Parts: sequence; C-alpha cells; structure tokens
Amino acid sequence: MRTTSPIKSELGSSTSDTVTVLGQDLISMLGKVNLGDFAFLEVFGRLPDERESVLFNALVVTLVEHGVTPSAISARMTYLGAPESLQGAVAAGILGLGNTFVGTIEGAAKVCQTHLPAAGFHDLGGLAPLSDIEIDDIAVAVVAEHAEQRKPIAGLGHPVHKPLDPRAQRLLQIGRELGFDDSSSRLMEALARKASERSGKVLPLNATGAIGALASTLGVPADVARGLGVMARSIGLVGHILEERREPMAKTIWFRVEDEVAP
Amino acid sequence: MRTTSPIKSELGSSTSDTVTVLGQDLISMLGKVNLGDFAFLEVFGRLPDERESVLFNALVVTLVEHGVTPSAISARMTYLGAPESLQGAVAAGILGLGNTFVGTIEGAAKVCQTHLPAAGFHDLGGLAPLSDIEIDDIAVAVVAEHAEQRKPIAGLGHPVHKPLDPRAQRLLQIGRELGFDDSSSRLMEALARKASERSGKVLPLNATGAIGALASTLGVPADVARGLGVMARSIGLVGHILEERREPMAKTIWFRVEDEVAP
Amino acid sequence: MRTTSPIKSELGSSTSDTVTVLGQDLISMLGKVNLGDFAFLEVFGRLPDERESVLFNALVVTLVEHGVTPSAISARMTYLGAPESLQGAVAAGILGLGNTFVGTIEGAAKVCQTHLPAAGFHDLGGLAPLSDIEIDDIAVAVVAEHAEQRKPIAGLGHPVHKPLDPRAQRLLQIGRELGFDDSSSRLMEALARKASERSGKVLPLNATGAIGALASTLGVPADVARGLGVMARSIGLVGHILEERREPMAKTIWFRVEDEVAP
Amino acid sequence: MRTTSPIKSELGSSTSDTVTVLGQDLISMLGKVNLGDFAFLEVFGRLPDERESVLFNALVVTLVEHGVTPSAISARMTYLGAPESLQGAVAAGILGLGNTFVGTIEGAAKVCQTHLPAAGFHDLGGLAPLSDIEIDDIAVAVVAEHAEQRKPIAGLGHPVHKPLDPRAQRLLQIGRELGFDDSSSRLMEALARKASERSGKVLPLNATGAIGALASTLGVPADVARGLGVMARSIGLVGHILEERREPMAKTIWFRVEDEVAP
Repeated sequence: MRTTSPIKSELGSSTSDTVTVLGQDLISMLGKVNLGDFAFLEVFGRLPDERESVLFNALVVTLVEHGVTPSAISARMTYLGAPESLQGAVAAGILGLGNTFVGTIEGAAKVCQTHLPAAGFHDLGGLAPLSDIEIDDIAVAVVAEHAEQRKPIAGLGHPVHKPLDPRAQRLLQIGRELGFDDSSSRLMEALARKASERSGKVLPLNATGAIGALASTLGVPADVARGLGVMARSIGLVGHILEERREPMAKTIWFRVEDEVAP
Repeated sequence: MRTTSPIKSELGSSTSDTVTVLGQDLISMLGKVNLGDFAFLEVFGRLPDERESVLFNALVVTLVEHGVTPSAISARMTYLGAPESLQGAVAAGILGLGNTFVGTIEGAAKVCQTHLPAAGFHDLGGLAPLSDIEIDDIAVAVVAEHAEQRKPIAGLGHPVHKPLDPRAQRLLQIGRELGFDDSSSRLMEALARKASERSGKVLPLNATGAIGALASTLGVPADVARGLGVMARSIGLVGHILEERREPMAKTIWFRVEDEVAP
Repeated sequence: MRTTSPIKSELGSSTSDTVTVLGQDLISMLGKVNLGDFAFLEVFGRLPDERESVLFNALVVTLVEHGVTPSAISARMTYLGAPESLQGAVAAGILGLGNTFVGTIEGAAKVCQTHLPAAGFHDLGGLAPLSDIEIDDIAVAVVAEHAEQRKPIAGLGHPVHKPLDPRAQRLLQIGRELGFDDSSSRLMEALARKASERSGKVLPLNATGAIGALASTLGVPADVARGLGVMARSIGLVGHILEERREPMAKTIWFRVEDEVAP
Repeated sequence: MRTTSPIKSELGSSTSDTVTVLGQDLISMLGKVNLGDFAFLEVFGRLPDERESVLFNALVVTLVEHGVTPSAISARMTYLGAPESLQGAVAAGILGLGNTFVGTIEGAAKVCQTHLPAAGFHDLGGLAPLSDIEIDDIAVAVVAEHAEQRKPIAGLGHPVHKPLDPRAQRLLQIGRELGFDDSSSRLMEALARKASERSGKVLPLNATGAIGALASTLGVPADVARGLGVMARSIGLVGHILEERREPMAKTIWFRVEDEVAP
C-alpha cells in the first residue's frame, strides 16, 4: 500500500440545510448571482465586483457562439449517430476546442503576460502602466520574433471581419469604459498595427485576441484561458443540438462527403 | 450522387462589421446581457424578460457545482493522464451527465409535462391552474404507478438534504416570488409528500426535481432538459480542473484503488 | 461515512515478474495471441478456440472501417481543432457510435436472442436447432410486428450493397464453414426475405445484421454488442486521423458548410 | 464562396458487390486476417508480412490491459452516470491516454528516431547497424541531457516490475527471435543501464519503452505512436465496462471520495 495524502476539495460541501461553494452560501446566491458571475467564482474563488461582472460576462458571451464551426459540425455528426446521448454530442464538440481555435486565446494571453509583467493586469500594485511608446517597442520586437520563426501572432487576422473585428472593438471599449488598465489591450492593438505594417496584409485584432488581452487584465493565467472557451462554447453547442433537431444538416453533410469520395 | 437539401443555420452570421446570433445583434448585447441570459437565447431563440432571466439563471447556477461527483472524478482522472488537453478533461466529465444523474431533471420534467398538459407552464393560455386537490389526485396516481413498477420517482430523495433540500426550497420560492404559475412546483411537492407517506421514508423534493418542475414552467421540453445540466456543469468542471491543479486528488484516488485491487 | 464494499478487479494484476489478465499469463500470450483473440478474452473472460478465433476476428475486422462516416467526419473535425490530442479526435469519433449506427447490431442481436431462446446460440445444450419452417414463422411474425409499429428491422437494407451485401454473405459463409449452428443466420436471412416480400423493396441482410446474428451465435449479450463496434472502430478512427494528416478534408468540409450557411 | 479542393479518401470504397479498404479487397480478407493485422493495414496502408504480424500483434496486445488505471476509473465513473451510452464511457477512458501515460511511447520512440537516423529501423537501407559502443555513447549523452534538464527518460522505471519488466523483456525477445534489427532495443536497454547507474535507482526498461523502441523498428512515426495505445486500450476499456456491470466499483470509489472530502 502506498501512502497517500488526504483528499480535499473546497468546491462544494453540504449539511442538511446548507450548501457551500468555494466558501460562499449557495442558497443566498440563487436569484441574485447570474451564470457568468458564478463562472467567475469557479475561476477566481470569489465573486466578481460590479465591473468585473460586466467585463467577464461580455468575454464569455462572445465565446458562446461562432456559427457552424468544426466543433459544431462534430457535435451535430455525433448527435446523428447517438441521439440518445445529448451529452456525448456536446462532449464531441468540446473536444475540438484545442490549440487551433481556443489556443489562440491562450497565445494572446501569453504574449500579454510575458511582456507586461506586473503592469497590464488587474492589480497594477502601484506601478505606472507602460507608455504607448514602450508598448510599441514591445510590439515591434514580438512581431519580428514571430516573423523570424514564421509563426502567426495569436489573436490577429479574420477572414470576414476586416479591417476591424466589431467584437474585439466592443470588448476593448467595454474594458476602457469600466476603467480597467488597458495595457494588454494597447499591446494587442499595437501588435495588429505593427504586424499589418510589416506583412502588408490587413491583420485586425480579432475576438480571441481581445479576449486573451482582457482575460489577462482580469488575472486569468494564460494556461487556463482556454477554460473560458470551453465553458462558453458548451452552451453554444447545446444550442446547435437544439437547432439540429429542428433543422438537421448532419445527414446532408455526410451524404455529400461520401458521394464526393466515392461517386 | 444523392439529392440533399440546402444547409441552413440561424445560430450565427456575420458581415464585415456585424455579428448576428439567432436574429440578435451580438455587439449591442455585449456588456448588457449576462451568460445565463445568452444561454436562454440559445435554448429559446429569444432573450428572456426580467423575471425569466432571474429564474433561468437561478436554475443553471444551481446545476454548476455538486462537489466531487463521479463526473468530476472522471474529469480529474483524465486531466492526470492528459494535462495537455483541458478540453478533454471537461469532455470526459460531461460524458457522465447521462440518465443516472441529469436524467432525473428530464424525468421530473416529463412527469410535469405529461400530467399538467397546457396548465402548469409558462403560458397558461387563459386556462385556470389546477387546484391543490386535483394536483394531489395526480400525485397519488403517479406514486402508485411508480410503486407498482418498483421505479423511483425522479427528483425525490437526497442522502444529506433531509427533510428538505434547501436548493429546491429556494428555487420554488424564487419561482413564486416572481409570480410564475406554480402548478409544476405544487405537483413535485405533492409527489414528495405522497411518496414519503406511502413508503414511510423521508423523500424530499431535491434540486433536480425542482429544476425539472421550473424548467417545465419556463417551457423547456423534457427531452432537452438535460441540456441545462450539460451547459452548467461544464463550468463547474473547469472549476474542478483548476482545483486539481492547485490541490490534486486524482493520483491519490488511483493509487488507493490500485492498491486495494492488488495489494 | 457510508459503508462500502471492497474494490475488486480481475482484469489485471502483477507481481514483480508476472502480469496476469483475466486469469491468463500475459507474458506467455505475447507473440502467440493476436489482437482479436485478446479482445475475445476481454469480452468472454477466456481465450477463443480456433474456430471462435476465426469468426470473432472476421466480425470485428468487418467493423473497423466503413469509409467517411459521420463518426469519421467528427474525428477529423476534432483533429483540425485540437491536433495536440489524437486521443480526443478518436474519442469524438467513438461518441457517434450510438443507437443510429452500432445500435443496429444490438437490435439484430436482440431479435435473435429474443426469438431463438437456447437454440441458435453457440451451445445448443443438446437441443435440436429450429427447422426452416419454424424460423420462417418467427420471421413472418417479427416482420408483421415491426410493420404495425412502423419501425424498420435492425440489420436490413443498404443504399449501395443490393441485392446482397457481400460482407454479410461472407460472414454467414464463414460461420457455416466453421460448423457453427446457423439458426441466428437463418433467422436474419428469413427476415430479409420476408421483409422484402412484404414491403416490395430490396432489403438485403447487411453487415450489422450479420454481425448481430453471429455475435449471438458466439454468445455476446445483445446489450453489449455495440462494444464490438466501439473496439473495432477505434482502430479505424486512428486510420482516419493518419489519413487526415496526409490528405486533409476537414477544413474543406468546414469552409463549404460555412459558405453555404452564410454566403 | 471560398475555393476548396476535392474531398478524397482511400480508406473505404464500395460497389454493389465489393468493399475495398486501402486498396485491399475486404471480402477476401475476412476469415484470414486478424484484427491486429487489420490495424497494421490502417497504420501502414499495407498488410504485414508474417513476422511483422507477430511483432505488431504483440505490441498492441501488451497495450490493451493495464488494470485499474486512471483511464479505466474514468470510464467506469462515466458508465455509472450514463449507462445508456457505452460508447461515452469508452470515450471518457480514451481521453486520458495523453502525455502522461501513452505519451511515454511517443517519448521513447522519439529518442530512438532522433538518435538512430536510418539505422535502427525496419529497413536499414543497406546500412550497418550501430555497434554496442556507439549505442552506449548515445545513451550516455541522452541520460546526461535529461539529467541536466531534470527530466525523466520516457520508457524507464516501474513501481512493481523491478529489476526487470517482464513485458519489456518478452517484447524485445520476440523482436530478436523474428530477426528484426535490434538497434532501437539496444538503445533503450543502454538508456536503462546508464540512467540506473547515474541515478543510483533501479530504472528498468518498461513496457511503453519497449513498445516505443519496437514501434520505431516497425516504422511507426513517433508522433503517431500514441495511436497504438488508443487502438488497443479501447478494447481494454470495453472489458472494464463489462466488468463494471458484473462487479461495480464506481459507486464505492465515489462514496469514499465524497465522504472523505465532507465527512
């Protein structure tokens, strides 16, 4: 027998007439706390203040629905095969939220969290934010480094939303209206500008780039930022299954693919 | 080549400077609509009014976190094996949200939606709600039918929350304070009373029973009610992965099981 | 603390220099036992004899690869989104192996196991097999029952393999060449004949129907027959991911769907 | 509309009376080709010769069953919650086959494939294999490099199988008996020896290390080696679900964890 440590969790505990989640009384939260605030509690271990609530809800709401993505197609295909298991269809969709798509949130957050140490986050701890000139210098260096390694910068570029992504614009505006330090936002904007200049292409800051920046502002570590996408998209995937029941597309996609492969 | 119909979706569409979700302008919702309201939009195709927002958010918040459930253990075990894939760990947890657990929401909703046709739902369409005596009669019949088939009634009973489940109590209270018709709630309460009387055991109305009743009140069809659980619990599962990173338990559980199987 | 029973498993145990799986010494099996035989051991708790080995391997080999099915599309879509997690892509594909597709194996097995009690299975226990006339009578009754309920008979019909499915033909032939009792096979053939007569359509016995019959012959309970499909198809799904790396189709499918939804 | 390329696949195609998989006639393979050989076909695009068949089957058979691992616990937990979906339980188990566990096969294969270019693989292309002295020199360098980076060497060490892992011993022996070049095997053995010497700990070559070596010998690229584990373990996971039905442990594990967290 190996010696093991005791098993502990602070996520939920109950007595006969109370339920506590992360130290908060669940019963008194019901009817007052919305789903986004409760998600904040799960991530940060405390409830948000008013402006954190607005910004965090805006970030996750943006992530819920991106149309008929590969993840949504996968969920719908799975539902066609296993209609007895709605949870299986949603799980299949969630499995596609990896490096290619939600990984860009992590990538953008990582750039912010690497190059804006201390500054650029929620709690500046008394430090002055970086000036625009300092931010531009960082952006030039990051763009050069990515160009050298021939790697795209996470959070830039969009096939449709050009020259500006309206979601990114609005999210940055919300952060500023609420009075959050905007160093992360300025860094991502500078990256978009400098990368566009250097490449000669239109590379707008996109929604995942803005979310990576603002998640950094709220203090979400880069390596769990994809958790926000997973939380939100599972809601959108339930929406896709409900639509697949009303207006199915999975069988059509399947037949077309099969007929093209073996006519 | 088989003839197939056109592929359509109303979930998301975009132009260069707009994003529309289910007919709503996403950009103008950001900063105003919370995550629970957006989930309502995905389920019902429209935004909730104020009291729907409060009730729906309360239902899904209740579902987020139920402590170290089999679903959470599965997510943590998966994260131990594949830390590169947070989405895989959450998906593994979601896969356990089937007939045994979230199926009880469906079961309770089905009882309400079968025995309270027209009445008992959001829109009574001018019908008078059933009287308490009528509801009691239904409850007696449902309890008898389940007893004959030796099947438990979905949504009743709890190992810890006795004689009352505080979450169920609070949710029913919220529904009533907001002025929703409470026929579904009264039916589930009557079932708890009659089933307890008949069996001689304490069978409180539990959280999933209350959610099944109130989801019916809001108009969620029984056969998609588990979607609410899937949406909400994916948020809680991200919370479990974050805790597993801070305070791991998966390896301890594994070692103890392995050592007991082959000492 | 609830009282719980001890945790036991016979699947695997080890000492410093031995490994035992279901009572068999793993080390001495290596180099002698093929993967299909080992799968038989996992299902039945013993190794197959020679003719069981041939039949069981033929059944699972038939299930490995069915071309670009919804399950394969889902796996490829998931790999596009999360190339870091091959296991996630395979899992997404497996999730589609539900009631619609592999459920037909279960359905066919259930018909055999309901209507051919004792007879028709591996071990006839001294009983004489049913005559062709008796089997035809069963088939007529089963077809009538399904027609009344307007339900299709599991294991019949194929869009391409008409008038006969070569896989089904070959599998039944293998079973007969090996000298297995063929009551289950005769029942499925009679069903195909009677259902075609009654409906006026060409309804060949298909591969899943033959597998349901022969799995019954081998003694696989109907309600776990889909396990054979899951085992086998996971191998095929790895094949699809390897092909997706060489010759990708996921992005093309996605772009076409997206462009059709929002041109 | 974006221009997309045609969708192609060679995995499966059918006419009314033929089925072709990767250029092979499926019907004539049935009854002759075992499941492991068919898995080889999916990985390599051709059927194995006789000795490849023996070695490949031995590798995947070794991977099927490792007892009550985190992956098996996750599958059993999922089955407890969603007994309607056997495929979901297996998928949940597969999701744990990531970097921590099957990643070690990839790690060992990568060491072999990086340090034994050309030599050490199936087709030596006329090159002479490296001498034991050359292999030892590589091993010393690899061990030093890992020690510097304080990283463990993939494929070494085992809590129970000491001083030798009988599975690894037998697999290497099979490879040698069949006359395969054994450079990869010698490299992994040298690593075990040198790492044990340097660390003063007993670090046997374990099963995943041997499989990484021999998969390299067969020509499996390191970055898809985990596919072998996924194929094989899905078979073992079906075995775990079948045992969970006979002799359940999931509820016991759950109750014990829950009672320890909140006594």
